[in-house]
This record gives sequence, structure tokens and C-alpha cells, in this order.
Amino acid sequence: MTSHDETSILHAVDAVFDREVDFLAELTSHPSTRGNEQSAQDFMAEELGARGYAVDRWTIDVDAIAHLPGFSPVIGAYEDAVNVVGTHRGSGKGRSLILNGHIDVVPEGPLDMWHSPPFAPRIEDGWMYGRGAGDMKAGLASNLFALDALRHLGYQPASDVFFQSVVEEECTGNGALACLERGYRADAALIPEPFSEKLVTAQLGVLWFQVHLKGMPTHVAYAGSGSNAIEAAIPLIAALHEMEHRWNRADRRHSDYADHNHALNLNIGKISGGDWASSVPAWCVFDVRMGLFPGQDLDVAKAEIEAVLREAASEHPFLRKNAPEIVYHGFHAEGYALSENRSPAATQAISELEHAHMSVNGSALDKLAITATTDARFFGLYADTPALVYGPRAEAIHGFNEQVELESVRRVTQATALFIARWCGLDKI
Amino acid sequence: MTSHDETSILHAVDAVFDREVDFLAELTSHPSTRGNEQSAQDFMAEELGARGYAVDRWTIDVDAIAHLPGFSPVIGAYEDAVNVVGTHRGSGKGRSLILNGHIDVVPEGPLDMWHSPPFAPRIEDGWMYGRGAGDMKAGLASNLFALDALRHLGYQPASDVFFQSVVEEECTGNGALACLERGYRADAALIPEPFSEKLVTAQLGVLWFQVHLKGMPTHVAYAGSGSNAIEAAIPLIAALHEMEHRWNRADRRHSDYADHNHALNLNIGKISGGDWASSVPAWCVFDVRMGLFPGQDLDVAKAEIEAVLREAASEHPFLRKNAPEIVYHGFHAEGYALSENRSPAATQAISELEHAHMSVNGSALDKLAITATTDARFFGLYADTPALVYGPRAEAIHGFNEQVELESVRRVTQATALFIARWCGLDKI
Repeated sequence: MTSHDETSILHAVDAVFDREVDFLAELTSHPSTRGNEQSAQDFMAEELGARGYAVDRWTIDVDAIAHLPGFSPVIGAYEDAVNVVGTHRGSGKGRSLILNGHIDVVPEGPLDMWHSPPFAPRIEDGWMYGRGAGDMKAGLASNLFALDALRHLGYQPASDVFFQSVVEEECTGNGALACLERGYRADAALIPEPFSEKLVTAQLGVLWFQVHLKGMPTHVAYAGSGSNAIEAAIPLIAALHEMEHRWNRADRRHSDYADHNHALNLNIGKISGGDWASSVPAWCVFDVRMGLFPGQDLDVAKAEIEAVLREAASEHPFLRKNAPEIVYHGFHAEGYALSENRSPAATQAISELEHAHMSVNGSALDKLAITATTDARFFGLYADTPALVYGPRAEAIHGFNEQVELESVRRVTQATALFIARWCGLDKI
Repeated sequence: MTSHDETSILHAVDAVFDREVDFLAELTSHPSTRGNEQSAQDFMAEELGARGYAVDRWTIDVDAIAHLPGFSPVIGAYEDAVNVVGTHRGSGKGRSLILNGHIDVVPEGPLDMWHSPPFAPRIEDGWMYGRGAGDMKAGLASNLFALDALRHLGYQPASDVFFQSVVEEECTGNGALACLERGYRADAALIPEPFSEKLVTAQLGVLWFQVHLKGMPTHVAYAGSGSNAIEAAIPLIAALHEMEHRWNRADRRHSDYADHNHALNLNIGKISGGDWASSVPAWCVFDVRMGLFPGQDLDVAKAEIEAVLREAASEHPFLRKNAPEIVYHGFHAEGYALSENRSPAATQAISELEHAHMSVNGSALDKLAITATTDARFFGLYADTPALVYGPRAEAIHGFNEQVELESVRRVTQATALFIARWCGLDKI
């Protein structure tokens, strides 16, 4: 590819970028929290269909994936969990590619903490604000408009390209897993999660679990004879944090995180308990997220978590005889390190992305070991497919006033278009 | 009153007792938690009307009571807060009497912790099980059937008697306050709350408040840069318990509680917070109940609570600049000590109850300073009316498998009938 060709592609992204921003705003306006992704998926299917891609829209069948490695226990009903894939069939000359992104967004939280409504995206000083604008609807937009830019020049990928818009990335990953089960495979995958135009070389595993505590309810007048299920949570939370501290010790770190003093975060993300101010509460439930290093065995981790809770409970007068119940619901995700993939496919894919990034930015591609998980693990661990996580700069993802930098979205779209051209090859339309 | 008369009354209670137990079972089957008292109040109004009492059934008007001493901030809507009073007009010879009881019950909590459904009362080994059976539908039954027993003998009270079935005892007391506002006054009040056939000589004040905390939400991957609103509650709860410890010190105790090492209980009764396991939670709310001694000023207590929370928050990096919000919702109740009422009316009322109790039991009436509040404070503090709290033996009130001892209900009904006879005098029907 000549530098003239590359420049044409960069300009073609510029030419479609206003439409890309409009698309991103419309997509962000769909409040696609878990279970509410349908309207956003309808929009995606419509946009893919209008471009002539073969659209596959299906509801995830839990029974079809429950036996597969990487499956996470399901939260709630799946009748509304819909994936969308648009397929471009190439002439077969290049290497095939999956362009993956997730449509689900995390809850917006209290509205009064947002400067403007989370699902009414607005642009200010070059940033678009809105829940999901960064994580990761900008990535879905850059995937789609990278292809549009090539088409604007009269080109299409020479190989097969599968455009995936999946659900469940934020809680289980079962959306990406369902794509694997449905047979979608390629020589590489690109996932533009918002990590500031850096290539993610390692990601953590994640476990979600709920701790259900019982208490001995009484009238508060006799509180001393009862057992408060809410307050019983406090020493268990402290014990979990001690475990978090141990797991982060230097001698337990994965090499990609050797210099990260606190990669594994334990988060108490939800709590509820009790019914009445003047009754000693009979129940409390709290939700925990814990990170794991790549290579850390999930079953071993779960056994340690259970032992920590059991030991803490054994020091509590009521819990000693009424053990906490631990429910695994959601993420049951192993860590994944692209850095450990020495295959030719991985080496080549990284090299092509490095070239693309350099052409756009004039600087080398930075690498990053992230402290979260992404759907990359499904491609990397369970389909022998190198998965490149590379997306725009965003701020306050999962927070309020989530925002994504539009010039960064432009550059990622340009790098993606160049990567497609290099990886897949181009045919004249 | 001759011992022959007394024996007749005791036997008359026996004669109506099967019907009383049936009545109690039916009343307990109405799930009259806060906001759901209507069917139980309909039943009460019907039973009172069928006996020929003049029935007053009205919806509490918050505006009419909000300015009165003893008012507590209202929780939720009041459109469904219905009081029922049945009036017996006497010939005017004796002393008038209010027979008061509350129809509201506290939430039943998790059903799986009950041996049998909480609103399907059952009798086993002489106890009736069910939410509210003890607290305090048995008291409503004993008030009503004490009058029935006298009628069974062909007697009625010579003075006015006001039978009150009120809402809101468990959260504000505004039901009893609304009866005062509506003009119901008498020379004494009897409230058969379930305190094991002891006379309550003092009761605590109670404050309810909510603590609203904010956090700084982020993706858990960057938990260190956020602030967890759920975990921020932990040091505040600890600080409140330190305050509880101070308030219970010997030098701060009311004389009726001099030997009680821990009369004032602070209860964390409810909590909720967060939306998503993998987001650092942006909010947490917990509900607190705190006891106060009689004579302890509510405003001083609130100022101390606020100072304690403010100080604890000042040591927290995020709360320091984002102060907890304290919302008073529900009990704003002063303590009340019948023991401090030296008036002739109080002395006489206590004496008559002592006689009645002795006649039933052959033993002296025990006295008790309780660690809860009751509606007695409205009569005692705001209407100059001695309020005798004296009711049956119950277990696990506010807990699961709440139960009331039926023989105790029988004895309390007998003592109440004797008390009415002595206090009000009797006329032949």
C-alpha cells in the first residue's frame, strides 16, 4: 500500500466523519442497558442491512452455550438478549476479520449526578457525552465507518468481514460466546474498547458473586438478642479486602502487571438489606466484583473466596451457624494475555495495527495491560484467534458524564480502515 | 365491686373467649402492613358497628396534624391512612376511657424464614402464630372482648368509652395523634401492647433517620480513582455506634433505666446502594433507628447525631467535600414516663389496674420500663391523660414466627374487663 493510498483512506474517513458522529449520537440515544438492547440492535441491523451486509439477528439460546468454556451464569431472562452480525463476503484473497463491539451499557445511576441526561447525547469542546458513548458505541461506529470510508473510495475488503454487535459484554460475555457458537470465525478480531488508542496486551479475569446473609430479626427494643444481617456484612467485606490485598502482592502478579501495585480491584457494587428501621434486619445481599490475573484458575479463586467468607463468618456469633450463601451470577471470566500469543497470526495482526497506528499518528503504538475484562478472551482463549483491543479515548466510563473524544474516534476509525486494508486486502467494488 | 361480681366478669370473658380467638385469627389474616391497613380497618369498623358503637372512620389529614406537638415526618402517601374509632356513650357516672390499639404491623420479611405463612395464623401449643398476632392485634381483641364480656353479663360502661384502632404506630404515631386532633379525650387510656402483663412505667423516645451518601462512580478497573458510597457507610455506622455507647453511659440514663446497661439501641434497619457489580457505587442510603431516654430533647439529640455524622464524614476523602444528607422520615418521638405522673388520675388508674391484675392473677402487678416507644406518649405528653400500657405475652414481635400466648390474652381480657368495671363503673343494659 502506497503512502498515497493511505492518505486517501485517511481523507475518506474525514469525508464520512460527520455522518459517523451523527450515527454515534443516534446509537447513544438508545438506552441499551441490560435487557433493553433491542431498539439499539434494531438500529444496528437496519444500518447494516441498508449497506448491503447480510444481517443475522438472533436471540441467544442459553442451552446452546451453557456447556461451552467461557460461559458465565446467566442473570435473569434471556428472551430479550439479541445479537446482530452483518457479514461481508470477500473474494477470498485476504485474511478474514471480525469487527466486534458490544451494544450493552451499564446503568446510568442517579440522574441528578449527570450534567445532562445520559441518553440525550451532546457534544461540547470536542467530546460527546452520554452513557455508552465511550463504552463502547464509539467503537461500533468506528468499525462501521471504517468500512464506509473504504466504500467511499470504491473499495471493499477482499476477505470475509463479520461485523458483530453483541449484548452481555458488561456482565457475562455470553453475547460474544454465542457468536462463536453460531460459527463466526476469522483470522483476527478487532474490538475498539475505549483504551486511549493503545493496544491491550493483557486483560484481567473477573468473577462476580453475591453474598446472601441472614440475620435474626427482633424488635429493635431487644436488638441485643437479634443479629443484624446488614452489620454482619461489614467484617466479611473487610476479609474480602484482605484477600484482595494478598492477591495483589508482587509475588502473585502476572508478568504483564509486574509494575501495577493494585491491578486486582474488589468492588462492593450493590447492597440491599432489611425492611424496616425498627426491626433488626433478617437479610442482606451484597454484590462483589473481583479481578484475577491471566492464568489464575477460576475454580481455585472461587475456593479461596469461599474459604475467606467461611472463615470470617466463623468469627460471627450468628453467621457461625448460619453460613453466608454465595451465588455466582454473571462474570465467570478468565484473564487473557495477547502478549503470550506468539503465533504468526498474532504477530502479523499486531504488526499491521502498529503500521496503521503509525500512519495515522506518526508515533509508535503504545501497549497496555488493562485492569478490566473485554470480550477479547473468547476469541483469544476459545477460538485461537488473536483479538486486538484498540479503541478511542474516553473518560468516566461506568461513571456519570461519560464522554468520548471525537478526534480520537476519528483517528481510531482511520487506523481501523488502514488495518482492514492491510489485513483483509481491498477489491474494487 | 364484690368478689362475686369479679368472678362473674372473669367467667364472662371465658364465655366469649372462643369468639375472641376466632376474631384474633381473622384480624391477623389481614396483612395490614403500612399502607395496607384498609381491609383490617373495614373489618374493625364492621365489628364495632355490629355491636352498636357509633363508628367514626376517617382518613388522616396531614395538614391538620402537622403543626401539633408529637407529629412525625410522614413517609409516603397518606391517602390510605385510615383510623377507626367506635364510641360508647355512657350515662356519665364513671370516668371516661380510651381503649387504644394499633392495626398496622411491620413487614413480615423473607417468607422462607417463617415456619408457616405470616398472614395465615395458626395455633400450636396454646400460642397463635402470625405477623401482628402479638403486636398488637391481640390487644385490639382484648379491648373489644372485654366490653363484650361485660355485655354478656348485661352490663355496659357507665362512662364514655372510645375504642380506637389506629394506623402508623410502627413508624410515626400520627394515627394516635390524629385521634387527639379529632377531639377524642378521656380520663385515662389503656393500650394493650404485648409486654407480658406488666405495666409499662416508662418508654423510650425514638428517632428515625436516613443517611444518604454519594460516591464517585467509575469503572471498577479504576476503582482507586472512585469513591465507593456503600463502603463509605461503614465508618459512619461505626461512629453512630460510638454515640450509642456514650448515650447509654450510666451518667446519662433516665432513672427508670438506671439498671439497664443498654436501653438505647441504634439499629441499621435498611440499606440499599449501587446499581452494578462492576461500577463503583454512586449512592447508598441506610435507615437508622435510635432510642432516647424520657426527657432527652429531640432537637439536641438530632444535633448530636448530625455532628457525629459530620465528624465521621470529615475523615473520609470524598465525603469530606460531599457531606452525607440526613433525612428525618418517621419517628420523631419523645420518651414518656408514666412513673413521673403523680396526678390523682394517674395514681387512681394505676391502682385500679393493680386491683384488676391481682384479681385475675393473685399476684402483684409488675412494672416495666420498656426499650421501645408506644402511642402512650400522645395521651401522656400532649393530652394530660394517664396512659396505661398493659398487654399480653408475645414472642418474636418484629421477627419471624411472631406469636402470642392465648392464655395470656385471656387474662389480659379479664383484667381489662375488671379495669373497665372499676374505672368506668357499670350500668345495666
